[in-house]
Amino acid sequence: MLKEAIYHRPKNNYAYAYNKELLHIRIRTKKGDLEKVRLIYGDPFDYKGSKPDLHELPMTVTYQDDLFDYWFVECQPINRRMHYMFALQENKTEPIVYFTEKEFYDYLPYDNPTFFFKFPFLNPIDVFQAPTWVKETVWYQIFPERFANGDKNLDPAEALPWASTEPSPENYFGGDIPGIIQHFDYLSELGITGIYLTPIFKAHSNHKYDTIDYFEMDPQFGDKETFKTFVEKCHERGIKVMLDAVFNHSGFYFAPFQDVLEKGERSDYKNWFHVREFPLQLNPKPNFDTFAFTANMPKLNTENPKVKNYLLDVAKYWIEEFDIDGWRLDVANEIDHQFWREFRQTVKAIKPDVYILGEIWHDSMPWLAGDQFDAVMNYPFTEAALDFFARNTINAEQFSHQIDRVLASYPENVNEIAFNLLGSHDTPRVLTQCRGDKRKAKLLYLFQLSFIGTPCIYYGDEIGMTGGQDPGCRKCMEWDEQNQDHNLLSLFKKIIQLRKNEPALGPNGTIRFLHTDNAKNHIIYERTSEDSVIIFIINNSEQKQEISLPKQYIEQDMMDLLTEKSADKSSEATVEPFGFRVLRMEK
Amino acid sequence: MLKEAIYHRPKNNYAYAYNKELLHIRIRTKKGDLEKVRLIYGDPFDYKGSKPDLHELPMTVTYQDDLFDYWFVECQPINRRMHYMFALQENKTEPIVYFTEKEFYDYLPYDNPTFFFKFPFLNPIDVFQAPTWVKETVWYQIFPERFANGDKNLDPAEALPWASTEPSPENYFGGDIPGIIQHFDYLSELGITGIYLTPIFKAHSNHKYDTIDYFEMDPQFGDKETFKTFVEKCHERGIKVMLDAVFNHSGFYFAPFQDVLEKGERSDYKNWFHVREFPLQLNPKPNFDTFAFTANMPKLNTENPKVKNYLLDVAKYWIEEFDIDGWRLDVANEIDHQFWREFRQTVKAIKPDVYILGEIWHDSMPWLAGDQFDAVMNYPFTEAALDFFARNTINAEQFSHQIDRVLASYPENVNEIAFNLLGSHDTPRVLTQCRGDKRKAKLLYLFQLSFIGTPCIYYGDEIGMTGGQDPGCRKCMEWDEQNQDHNLLSLFKKIIQLRKNEPALGPNGTIRFLHTDNAKNHIIYERTSEDSVIIFIINNSEQKQEISLPKQYIEQDMMDLLTEKSADKSSEATVEPFGFRVLRMEK
Repeated sequence: MLKEAIYHRPKNNYAYAYNKELLHIRIRTKKGDLEKVRLIYGDPFDYKGSKPDLHELPMTVTYQDDLFDYWFVECQPINRRMHYMFALQENKTEPIVYFTEKEFYDYLPYDNPTFFFKFPFLNPIDVFQAPTWVKETVWYQIFPERFANGDKNLDPAEALPWASTEPSPENYFGGDIPGIIQHFDYLSELGITGIYLTPIFKAHSNHKYDTIDYFEMDPQFGDKETFKTFVEKCHERGIKVMLDAVFNHSGFYFAPFQDVLEKGERSDYKNWFHVREFPLQLNPKPNFDTFAFTANMPKLNTENPKVKNYLLDVAKYWIEEFDIDGWRLDVANEIDHQFWREFRQTVKAIKPDVYILGEIWHDSMPWLAGDQFDAVMNYPFTEAALDFFARNTINAEQFSHQIDRVLASYPENVNEIAFNLLGSHDTPRVLTQCRGDKRKAKLLYLFQLSFIGTPCIYYGDEIGMTGGQDPGCRKCMEWDEQNQDHNLLSLFKKIIQLRKNEPALGPNGTIRFLHTDNAKNHIIYERTSEDSVIIFIINNSEQKQEISLPKQYIEQDMMDLLTEKSADKSSEATVEPFGFRVLRMEK
Repeated sequence: MLKEAIYHRPKNNYAYAYNKELLHIRIRTKKGDLEKVRLIYGDPFDYKGSKPDLHELPMTVTYQDDLFDYWFVECQPINRRMHYMFALQENKTEPIVYFTEKEFYDYLPYDNPTFFFKFPFLNPIDVFQAPTWVKETVWYQIFPERFANGDKNLDPAEALPWASTEPSPENYFGGDIPGIIQHFDYLSELGITGIYLTPIFKAHSNHKYDTIDYFEMDPQFGDKETFKTFVEKCHERGIKVMLDAVFNHSGFYFAPFQDVLEKGERSDYKNWFHVREFPLQLNPKPNFDTFAFTANMPKLNTENPKVKNYLLDVAKYWIEEFDIDGWRLDVANEIDHQFWREFRQTVKAIKPDVYILGEIWHDSMPWLAGDQFDAVMNYPFTEAALDFFARNTINAEQFSHQIDRVLASYPENVNEIAFNLLGSHDTPRVLTQCRGDKRKAKLLYLFQLSFIGTPCIYYGDEIGMTGGQDPGCRKCMEWDEQNQDHNLLSLFKKIIQLRKNEPALGPNGTIRFLHTDNAKNHIIYERTSEDSVIIFIINNSEQKQEISLPKQYIEQDMMDLLTEKSADKSSEATVEPFGFRVLRMEK
């Protein structure tokens, strides 16, 4: 047994409250090393005579990566308190090893209960609880300047005719909120149920990440009445609305920053930023903290109670006045945790089911323990999917390992609500990453839309738009139906519909890789609900393949969910080059 | 290279802000596996052309246990932001392996900076910051009913003559606050600088962990005037005062609980507790949550804002009215984290350098991230020390491994303020654990008092009191000087004095095991400051030993800190059975 590989520590992704009654326990062991792992547990105060009264549950491997097996069990702690250890076995003939917080034992250490692992008490208030509606949401991200120009009167003076040229960091095309309202039917037909708008507050640039006034709409997008109407109409259609909170930094023309620029150390706002010395200097390098090294994005001092209260007021204002349903938090990882804890308390107090989504690209466990965010933008998912389907830099097994590693790195209640994207205003578009190969792009979208958690479609991806790194990915939406890819669009509609209709693709299903083939570059994964299972067979190769079904599916009655016809009973499935099959079997 | 053994994850004991400018980074590798480990780091937004601009620092092994080496480096992040990876080498001829959040690489993954490890921003407000005075404090724990009876008028009716019989769970001896005041000179001479009192609020039992009124002194201990005088006199002598907050549960006679007992579901206080069904039932098993299964200790519902505010008012009251310096939190691990976060905010707002000490016996990282406690009762330290010195259940090397493992499991700023105890009102006394062998007890006290962090002496241990598990450990303090062990007492005084005078034993020194010998059962460890080093040579065996000095100490000028004379230059030190030497060398 490779003891060095074994890892467990409570109160993170390895031991957490799944809900107010259940704990989830995981342990990591060397891949393939152990045959049997059991959880030995009890109430820390429950004794039978002098011995702790203990129970046991078998654990199973739910995730696997290139180095490790991740074992899992769900259990209900007795009296909401639990101490526990693990009984580890290489195989039936090898002795059991017991693993506690203190060390490994070759006997069940009844004599040393002090250092059993502890989940001391399942306090409901500490449970990670995200709004339940999010699990069923299909998000659609809109970059407002580029989605649709609904009201020419709002256009900035320098606005160019729609799609008349390539997007640049500086140009404008006049997209606005009325434009989105005019295309509600398009969005409803697509099936999306949430709109994430990149910033709409008064700002200087076309992307609006350099806020001038957090309490005002940017006039090029419309007024507050228009926005109120927009939210109301969204809600009527069952669509949630999420805004972008750019709280890490303000824009250059934010009044308090202008005041500091002007008055220096005498400014009432001098502690609103992180100024290293006065007067402020912008070039060659700012002498104050900024987003990246961008002098026109001065970092806000969120530790200053005035700044904190100002920003919390902003957060409340747009919920209370406009009834928005979520906040996406820009550069969330660079703001202090204390601020985010207060942010959560503040916004959940006025709208308990508001969604809090942090922009964090890396491992985010410290923000997802229940006290800060509901989700983060799941870029590790993005990267794994692009590496396999678009870039061909990893093989089928590596892909399943990377995805499993992402899943294993968070609690299941976090995974169920993860914000799974394939691209955004900050990355090249999927189709461009696929070098224009729509077959590959379809595989990516299929994978994303069939995954657990909540997918987000970047505007225009669904009709085959292309574009490289920003600003390329911020092209004007293609509204000429002749230039839209209706075949691609219908795939989106189809899978989104399946998410709604198929319990196995619903919010409480699970996902598991059943098979990966590196030589043939195909994968099979399964989503499961109480009553049915759906397998996805994806051929990520140029060759048409006859792919063997996992044995439990061989010669079974199955429904082909794409053709909506019964599939022939068989031991294999025919899959076109870069094609896929989606088959449902009743349990 | 055993990749399975390698572990790192940011924002816990593996990567944390040591102060407002410095980060500490650790990585765990298989013991003895690697020769060289370097931290490769930079500002995530700093590029040289298309490549991240990276720097490097060598890491060193600071701790070691039976399975792992723990590598460490301190670094100052550029612009307070950092992304990083590790360069790992088995030896000079083997290729370097690079380890990032995403995976292992055989090249420096300039092309994949997104998944470098991240410490996104060093926000000062998130830094773990405990009061600095605690590092220099030597605590003395008093169980008030048993320390000294200073005012017979306060005695409970059933009080027995002092020390007239063995302590029982039910009997009283009349210890009180005036008794402590009368013995201030004794305490000052001992050299302690902090008093931790187990509960003094109005309660039913002799231990007072079953509170009746959190706003009243227990009349058997004195009135509030007396307590105010006590705190003032402590402060005059440079002694801090810490009280015990029993917030997990109330006592049976707590008015709100009595109200619920009486009125059941109609009680205004029905949601102050966790009642499963009405009416309340006490036997055979309570139908409400309790501490352990103790019906007279009903668990408080700290999620109820009324209860929360009530308890926070209690916490404020004793600080504001009596100027106490710390709160020790009983059964802290069973109360919700949200409550403790508000508790911290509340008490630090009124007294920024108040000390918050949680009673947690196990691994406590989730409470020590800066948002909740300053320290926990370090029972893993206790157990390791008792196992080696008192119980002889582990050898010298296992001892150093267990201690190193405790140190490696927390940030260094947490270790510097750890509450290191060898016993309490909840455990058998040290001398009893040593089966009366005072030589062994001395080794334990020497180790505790020479360790980093803050030691706590349980009243009477310093004069050789004995006693088994509660109630045995709660005997009346021995005030008859003829029955006090003055030799033991002078050792305490001596080492406490050294802690104050020797920079290497001061708050910012470090500790490191230099040598362990399992056959001869001796250990050598070193404490270091900028200017001097002190080695502790401990012979935990029945045989007098000539113990070889570590090579840097051979034939050096050294001061014997126990005899206060120069030690002969030598290559070894003579150490009596269960004896020790303390030698200082200037750097």
